[in-house]
Amino acid sequence: MAEHRRVCLIGAGPCGMSFLYHNQKHNAGEVVCYEKQSDWGGLWNYTWRTGLDEYGEPCHGSQYRDLWSNGPKECVEFPDYTFEDHFGKVIPSFPPRAVLQDYLEGRWRKANLRSHIRFNILVKNVTYNKETDDFTVIVKDLVNDKELPSERFSHVIVASGHFSVPNVPEFDGIDTFRGRILHSHDFRRAHEFKGQRLLIVGASYSAEDLAMQCTKMGSANIITCWRTKPMGFKWPEGIEERPLLTKIDGNTINFKDGTKAEVDVIILCTGYLYHYPYLSDTLRLKTGLRLYPPGLYKGTVWMGDGNNKLMYLGMQDQYYTFTMFDIQAEWACAVTRGDKKLPNRTEMELDMKKWLEEEALLKNCYDHITFQTAFVCDLAREVGCKYNLDVAALFNKWEDDKHSNVVTYRDHAFTSVFTGTPGIKHHTPWIEAFDDSLDTFVNQTPNK
Amino acid sequence: MAEHRRVCLIGAGPCGMSFLYHNQKHNAGEVVCYEKQSDWGGLWNYTWRTGLDEYGEPCHGSQYRDLWSNGPKECVEFPDYTFEDHFGKVIPSFPPRAVLQDYLEGRWRKANLRSHIRFNILVKNVTYNKETDDFTVIVKDLVNDKELPSERFSHVIVASGHFSVPNVPEFDGIDTFRGRILHSHDFRRAHEFKGQRLLIVGASYSAEDLAMQCTKMGSANIITCWRTKPMGFKWPEGIEERPLLTKIDGNTINFKDGTKAEVDVIILCTGYLYHYPYLSDTLRLKTGLRLYPPGLYKGTVWMGDGNNKLMYLGMQDQYYTFTMFDIQAEWACAVTRGDKKLPNRTEMELDMKKWLEEEALLKNCYDHITFQTAFVCDLAREVGCKYNLDVAALFNKWEDDKHSNVVTYRDHAFTSVFTGTPGIKHHTPWIEAFDDSLDTFVNQTPNK
Repeated sequence: MAEHRRVCLIGAGPCGMSFLYHNQKHNAGEVVCYEKQSDWGGLWNYTWRTGLDEYGEPCHGSQYRDLWSNGPKECVEFPDYTFEDHFGKVIPSFPPRAVLQDYLEGRWRKANLRSHIRFNILVKNVTYNKETDDFTVIVKDLVNDKELPSERFSHVIVASGHFSVPNVPEFDGIDTFRGRILHSHDFRRAHEFKGQRLLIVGASYSAEDLAMQCTKMGSANIITCWRTKPMGFKWPEGIEERPLLTKIDGNTINFKDGTKAEVDVIILCTGYLYHYPYLSDTLRLKTGLRLYPPGLYKGTVWMGDGNNKLMYLGMQDQYYTFTMFDIQAEWACAVTRGDKKLPNRTEMELDMKKWLEEEALLKNCYDHITFQTAFVCDLAREVGCKYNLDVAALFNKWEDDKHSNVVTYRDHAFTSVFTGTPGIKHHTPWIEAFDDSLDTFVNQTPNK
Repeated sequence: MAEHRRVCLIGAGPCGMSFLYHNQKHNAGEVVCYEKQSDWGGLWNYTWRTGLDEYGEPCHGSQYRDLWSNGPKECVEFPDYTFEDHFGKVIPSFPPRAVLQDYLEGRWRKANLRSHIRFNILVKNVTYNKETDDFTVIVKDLVNDKELPSERFSHVIVASGHFSVPNVPEFDGIDTFRGRILHSHDFRRAHEFKGQRLLIVGASYSAEDLAMQCTKMGSANIITCWRTKPMGFKWPEGIEERPLLTKIDGNTINFKDGTKAEVDVIILCTGYLYHYPYLSDTLRLKTGLRLYPPGLYKGTVWMGDGNNKLMYLGMQDQYYTFTMFDIQAEWACAVTRGDKKLPNRTEMELDMKKWLEEEALLKNCYDHITFQTAFVCDLAREVGCKYNLDVAALFNKWEDDKHSNVVTYRDHAFTSVFTGTPGIKHHTPWIEAFDDSLDTFVNQTPNK
């Protein structure tokens, strides 16, 4: 039985690392962080692997090699560790993958957080013990292929993400398709699709970005198709949008509008599942992707079983990312320390209800941004954060840019709200930038 | 607590179905079969899916759409349900996937076994209770996304296979490769690789057959590479063997013999892991692929924890398949019924030791066939099987044929040892047979 505060943290991605960061800052005592991968970073720990990993466990990674940030870095910037702090200079606003990863790791390295993480450890089972008001956690040492003795914790923080387990629907006739079928989770290199005719199913971030990436890398042509509504961007030559497919017949795709097309590859950008196979049913969040998953006070504290000592980080649909995770982790850490007292159950339920009612009224991306800004600022207020985390104006401009021109939106420069230093432009427009190395981008050296 | 015989059977593939078959034949009482897929067949339940399935669980299926049997059907034929019994006629010896699947299902349908299977149920946890000498099994209803109340069983039969969880090693520089990388587990359609230059890593059945399939379907050229020894077949134009790769540098592969090659795709035919995430450590078989996995009396009864009431079916490396699974299941069923008494521990250990010593002396495929024939016939003797299951002569001829000509070995006709009816040849040589439909093959109608 854990009589004192002893926190089990599941996942060493941006959310988990922010929890460790604030725990350390407050000298708050023991946190055991279990990470199934061999390194920190969560989704930012890029892997060439797909499907199952070297231990037969589902691959966590969903990022692709050629990813460039699809939002301005000024929207993800930590106020206490700016990009200028990290790189010692101003860099353009839409960095390639490796640059953002380096930035994140810089903050973690500076705080010396690595020693708190137990790598290659898979959490297998988490249950709540009512009698002792604590949790039993069973984990597996993947390298040595054995279960370790169970441990008890006062709190459990779930930070294992929700963009790792693909949602893969069935389509009529899909088993007759003779080409490659993959989910965006398993997309690694746009080069693989050079010269090929692609069908991209979906109308959210993955669909948008994979269409653009594959066009950039030389796919023959791309049809994206939507269920609810089209993305509606002014697509460059070679990309078109159609309503959802209805039937697949060999390599012929039939669409809802009666049109047909021959394609070589189907990429399912059909989203992800909330999947926590290690949590007992009474502790498990079941939701679709939304800005305010129900059942979480302040989007964080599990209101089901577990006496409010189980918390989820980063389970929202996301405009804000690193800064939202960070303020959420700071708040959660304060709760585990007892520095932030939770109100009584009725008050918590009323608070959730208020947010859910507001969420239900949102109509478009600008509303979403306003809502999530309020969510972030509310948490900031709760912990007495001295920074203003509101970057709604930047998000709004970014949406405008993207809707104005989806090819060039990454070529704009934004100004950091924390440093005030005006942004600079990358020397090469994104659509022509094939060198995504950190050196070229950060130091603005010529493309290699 | 389970005071009477109540068997938990995990998996409704060929092994599990054979257990149900013999259980029914003996009217032996309750068996609850949990199957995570939505249909029976195990690996024979072909799926277009790869990676994770619709519930976020690892896809079981490893078969590819264009698979044709790589051994003569006369080597897998059930003595009590021959191919002639099923199809009402003689058919050629190397059927495409759908024909073998139909044959298997025919036997299962005839015995009316479906009602014993609980589909879409994932086994999450199996533990042995020493005090009560039984097992607690926890399962998840995948469709309704919830854990079911735990159940107790007197015996557990593990029949979840060992060709479902890929073994995916790391190679120096693999993250610099710009093309597609996949394990044979995720190989579905040879069409996907038309016109492409392939590197196939491995020198066992998958490597051999994928090389041949891809050549047949029009890959540009194929290099296979081996770690221990080359396959050594007389390959057709377009396939060559090299020693193992040493380093990958972009799309350039470096081999141990100092040669280099540019390739578009890497297919890892690097085998599978024995992976039973649902078994507690003391019940879990840990082994590599071999003809006699240690720790299993008669290749079946777990000698570790569980008082010999946990059994594994089909965990051997396999020449024999359906008939071996069947006799093993018949034997295991007799043990669970108490009709077959296990000898004392010392005798069981001596018996295992004898087999392991023999296994250690085996030198080549013909030795392996002799060994596994003895293994199968030993089980047959144990249960008083009235059939002679020895098809070593057919296996030996098949090996000869393959080593003589890897392109044409599927064009030979074999004679059933049970019916004695001379075999017939398919109207089209395998290398030219692109119509793999059941109708064309079974009824010898013209290719469509």
